[in-house]
Formats: sequence, structure tokens, C-alpha cells
Amino acid sequence: MTDIQRIDQNQRRSRGIVHNGLVFLAGQTANDLSGDIRQQAREAFAKVDDMLAQAGSDKTRVLSVTIWLGDMADYDGFNEVWDGWIVKGESPTRACAKVAMHDPRVRVELIVTAAQ
Amino acid sequence: MTDIQRIDQNQRRSRGIVHNGLVFLAGQTANDLSGDIRQQAREAFAKVDDMLAQAGSDKTRVLSVTIWLGDMADYDGFNEVWDGWIVKGESPTRACAKVAMHDPRVRVELIVTAAQ
Amino acid sequence: MTDIQRIDQNQRRSRGIVHNGLVFLAGQTANDLSGDIRQQAREAFAKVDDMLAQAGSDKTRVLSVTIWLGDMADYDGFNEVWDGWIVKGESPTRACAKVAMHDPRVRVELIVTAAQ
Repeated sequence: MTDIQRIDQNQRRSRGIVHNGLVFLAGQTANDLSGDIRQQAREAFAKVDDMLAQAGSDKTRVLSVTIWLGDMADYDGFNEVWDGWIVKGESPTRACAKVAMHDPRVRVELIVTAAQ
Repeated sequence: MTDIQRIDQNQRRSRGIVHNGLVFLAGQTANDLSGDIRQQAREAFAKVDDMLAQAGSDKTRVLSVTIWLGDMADYDGFNEVWDGWIVKGESPTRACAKVAMHDPRVRVELIVTAAQ
Repeated sequence: MTDIQRIDQNQRRSRGIVHNGLVFLAGQTANDLSGDIRQQAREAFAKVDDMLAQAGSDKTRVLSVTIWLGDMADYDGFNEVWDGWIVKGESPTRACAKVAMHDPRVRVELIVTAAQ
């Protein structure tokens, strides 16, 4: 269907989908999983920014972010990076939980919905 | 952009966003975290109702609720409050999981998407 | 409201909702909780397929899937079923976490958003 645009699709999933002005991103994590929460969060946000750009959107148009942390002790470090990422006055809704992810080295995963 | 309406925005997040007839709410928790599941759920739903009203929506127009519980032993108590909150015949979709939240006193967090 | 179509509603929740071309499904799990991850995943996807059909959609139009596993050791078994379910070239976005669900026998719960 031409009303569903897929971005960076591999054999298992699309990394992003645009439909009817909404952008859905697959859970984004750092590629380099050796770092601390700040490095991983910065890298995950960079991937989100890149995906949003490919979708014709940007971080000022994010509607919701679900934040998964592997360890709630990383909460303050994550927020430090978050606070530098958001544009004041144009921030998204968010919710944050500690869960376990597939690779235990993943400290943060971001699930983003945005307006195109 | 004028096509994204933000409600109750602070330095970190918007508590609600309306875009193209959809309402996204940040994870809502009780303010008073000293209470049991019933008190916390009632307070969280009251905040959801208030946010929905500000967004020009109401609980009969909720599309999905993700329910995070801090302890699955609270499941029955939560459902007692849920069953009193929903309008029969106009109930949303839902999914419920036990996760850990930032403040361990939080017994329930509600993540709501609604139609305006 | 006639702009919100509810599918398979019981006293507590709608199993599916269609609004403005978007389909929201309640968390879907196997009915038979005695099986392993492959059996439970197959049954959960069958329920998703059935709900999507009722909503006038299908698996090639899924926008996002949140996958909750009860045990991350089931990740490979789940993906085996996932890889057989998706249509190559028309895959959704996804994110996967281990959480705890109400019934500890539930090995997988799928939360699906789709385009109608």
C-alpha cells in the first residue's frame, strides 16, 4: 500500500513507519553497548533524530516517548541527556520504566511516536 | 507548529499533547504516594480525566491504556477501581504489566491515548 | 460516538478499537497457557490476525508491535514464530521487553497498532 512508508527495513522489522502523518519508530538503542547511560542515551537519541529526519519530522514534533531503562539507577544520568535533547517549549509526553531488554548491556531503549 | 497543542508543559515534558484529533498523555501517577493501590489508582484516573477534559476529550473516547503496576499483587485492587472508572459499552483497549518505576512507592502508572 | 468502533467488548475492555483509520488492539495472549513460547506466540498472532480482520486491516498494515516476554530466554523461540508471521517487505516497527504479566504462565503478550 502506498499509504504506509517504511524506513530502513530489514528481514525482521521496519525501523520506522510513516502513515497518515504519524511516525512510529522501532525501539532505538545505542549501537555501542560498552558505554555508560550518558553515552548510550546520546547515541540512541542520535538514531531517533536521524530516523525522524528520514521520516520528514524532527524532535520538536515528537508526541510520546516510552523510555525503558535496564537499571533505574541510570534515571538521573538519562534525564541529563534527555534535558539536553528536548527543545524547551516543544517537549513530548513521556513515561519511563525499568524492564529487561534482550541484550543485558542495553541501558536504555526509546520508543517514539511523532507527527510528520 | 500550530498543529501540536501541548497541555501542562514543564521543563522536561508535556503532560498532554493533542495532534490531528489524537490525545497522548504522559504516564500519570498519584501525587500522594503514601496510599494503597485503590487510592493511587483513583488519583491517577482523576488526573487522566482532568487531562482529557483539557484536551477536549473524555474517558469514553480513550483508545488504549497501558497499565504499569509496581506489584502484580495489586491487580485485583486496581481492577476494582478500573471497573468503576470505565463507562460500560465505551471501554478502551488495555494491556497491563508489572515493571519498576522511578519512585518505588508508585503502585500504578497509566499511559493513555485517546481520541479528541 | 460513531467515530469509535469497538470490537469484542466485554465488561472490562474492548479487544479492539478503530478510530479515524487507526486500529488499537488490547494486549493479546494465548488462550492455552500450558504451551511453550512457540505455541503461545502462534496462538497470540492468530488472535491478532483475527482482530485485524474484524477491524478491516491485516498484518501487512501493522504500524507497531510492543512485545512483552515473561522470560527473555524465550527471545529466539519468539522470533522464530515472528519471522514466520511477518510478510517480508511489509514488516512493522517493534520493541521487545521482559516484564511480568498477570498470569505467570503467560509467556508472550502482543500490543498492536495498525492502519485500517
